[in-house]
Amino acid sequence: MMNQINRVAIVGGTHGNELTGVYLIKKFERFPQLIQRSSFETLTLLANPQAFKKNRRYIDKDLNRCFLNQDLQNSSLSSYEDIRAKVINQMLGPKGKSQVDVIVDLHSTTANMGLSLILDTQHPFMMQLAAYLCSLNPLVKICCPQVDKESSFLRSLCPFGFVIEVGSVAQGLLNAELFQKTEQLIYTVLDYLEAYNQGFISPTNSTFNLFEYVETIDYPRDENGEIQAMIHPQLHFQDYEPLNPGDPMFLTFDGKEITYQGESIFYPIFINEAAYYEKGIAMCLTKKQLIKV
Amino acid sequence: MMNQINRVAIVGGTHGNELTGVYLIKKFERFPQLIQRSSFETLTLLANPQAFKKNRRYIDKDLNRCFLNQDLQNSSLSSYEDIRAKVINQMLGPKGKSQVDVIVDLHSTTANMGLSLILDTQHPFMMQLAAYLCSLNPLVKICCPQVDKESSFLRSLCPFGFVIEVGSVAQGLLNAELFQKTEQLIYTVLDYLEAYNQGFISPTNSTFNLFEYVETIDYPRDENGEIQAMIHPQLHFQDYEPLNPGDPMFLTFDGKEITYQGESIFYPIFINEAAYYEKGIAMCLTKKQLIKV
Repeated sequence: MMNQINRVAIVGGTHGNELTGVYLIKKFERFPQLIQRSSFETLTLLANPQAFKKNRRYIDKDLNRCFLNQDLQNSSLSSYEDIRAKVINQMLGPKGKSQVDVIVDLHSTTANMGLSLILDTQHPFMMQLAAYLCSLNPLVKICCPQVDKESSFLRSLCPFGFVIEVGSVAQGLLNAELFQKTEQLIYTVLDYLEAYNQGFISPTNSTFNLFEYVETIDYPRDENGEIQAMIHPQLHFQDYEPLNPGDPMFLTFDGKEITYQGESIFYPIFINEAAYYEKGIAMCLTKKQLIKV
Repeated sequence: MMNQINRVAIVGGTHGNELTGVYLIKKFERFPQLIQRSSFETLTLLANPQAFKKNRRYIDKDLNRCFLNQDLQNSSLSSYEDIRAKVINQMLGPKGKSQVDVIVDLHSTTANMGLSLILDTQHPFMMQLAAYLCSLNPLVKICCPQVDKESSFLRSLCPFGFVIEVGSVAQGLLNAELFQKTEQLIYTVLDYLEAYNQGFISPTNSTFNLFEYVETIDYPRDENGEIQAMIHPQLHFQDYEPLNPGDPMFLTFDGKEITYQGESIFYPIFINEAAYYEKGIAMCLTKKQLIKV
């Protein structure tokens, strides 16, 4: 069994142009009673204020890749985001010995990912939370990278960090409907943690689908690294739907269809995420697993 | 009557993160026969290559506001975009005495504007072209700012400059479906100009709706200029639909509805355009006018 949850941090603006999280943090800082619960403390953090000010994902580098232990301890790394990561590590960490038990990091994506939770751990506590959220709202999806090495994400600062990833939302704007759905999901999470602390959560026999990362797929590119094709219209916005061998994946600029050549059915997510063009990611393939808790 | 069309310029990437235009220009430069017609010359231009490289709208300032005569002639203006505007003025202008007759400037928007043409003039030649495009494709919409002073837009360099504005597309990504629709629209325009030059266009009795700008509406803001509300979910993506007195316009962060207080029915466009948050524009109201040509 786990101990009590004593401190929860809600983080927004880890990417400065993902405004849903930024304006939720601003709201929570104006109306702190919305996120206060009796059995734990809730902190808020606008993670990358300079990037928000400039309406960009980051100033020098992606803040959400700056949280490896060796980087946090490397004083020669001095970009704006490297410095910011060290500050956040002091506020919410230190990593491996953190002051907070749960981090909820608010992100948005141009992919059609609805209300997704991205976990780093399959710890029973997180699986139970995931099952609960899915049972309340079938639009909630749960995904999980393959965790075979140390994570560089902000959420990795504490044991139970996860991302709420909402989409499709363009960068640099607010979608009121998704803003409100994200807000409700946060309250549901906080209420769950409160109930957990108060002993009202009992293990149930429930199931949910976990979408586990298998691999990332890049755009077709030429020898200079220039993309040669777009996400195929039949695949665009079809996150979490099955991709079968032979299904169209890309459409080249001169109108040729490129099909999926794999041999297994996978479930792509982060399809056409704007910020991933530069990372060489057109989508992430996942496999769907039924989890029993 | 007008003279022949001798030279047409297709421009993309005036805003560097509007990728539809950028990749259409790259395609046309690779396959120039696609845009060649027998009776006129077609040029292509990637207007803001540095902004494209950085995946940003602009480096120092909005290039598409740099084309006032006094600014083009002001050598003390030396931002990247001011310099770029002077170069483009040499290539396609000089303004008022331009080498090209038609500029097609390719833009995209996060607003749900479908395939929009934005004109600066109601010259019969442009009205005829607009009527033709609307008759072929009812998804084509025509809008026109109130032109009471000199325009600072790139398209103002020549007599018949206009924008093709497609959306909804997020910044920094490609939507294959809208890419192909934009491409087809360009070919239709070029074919029309060819037919015009060859004397195949005869005045017809047709009509179309012109959406003429009336005013811009800003987000509700506090004393520091911070926005206090989002586009209301009922208005979001409803570009070109009627906005009636009393209709919801905004939703504050604490969930209060703000309704439209005007007395006339208008037709909002550019609703929730990401790049307009910093310009103080939540939407542009237009009035719908039936044009007979």
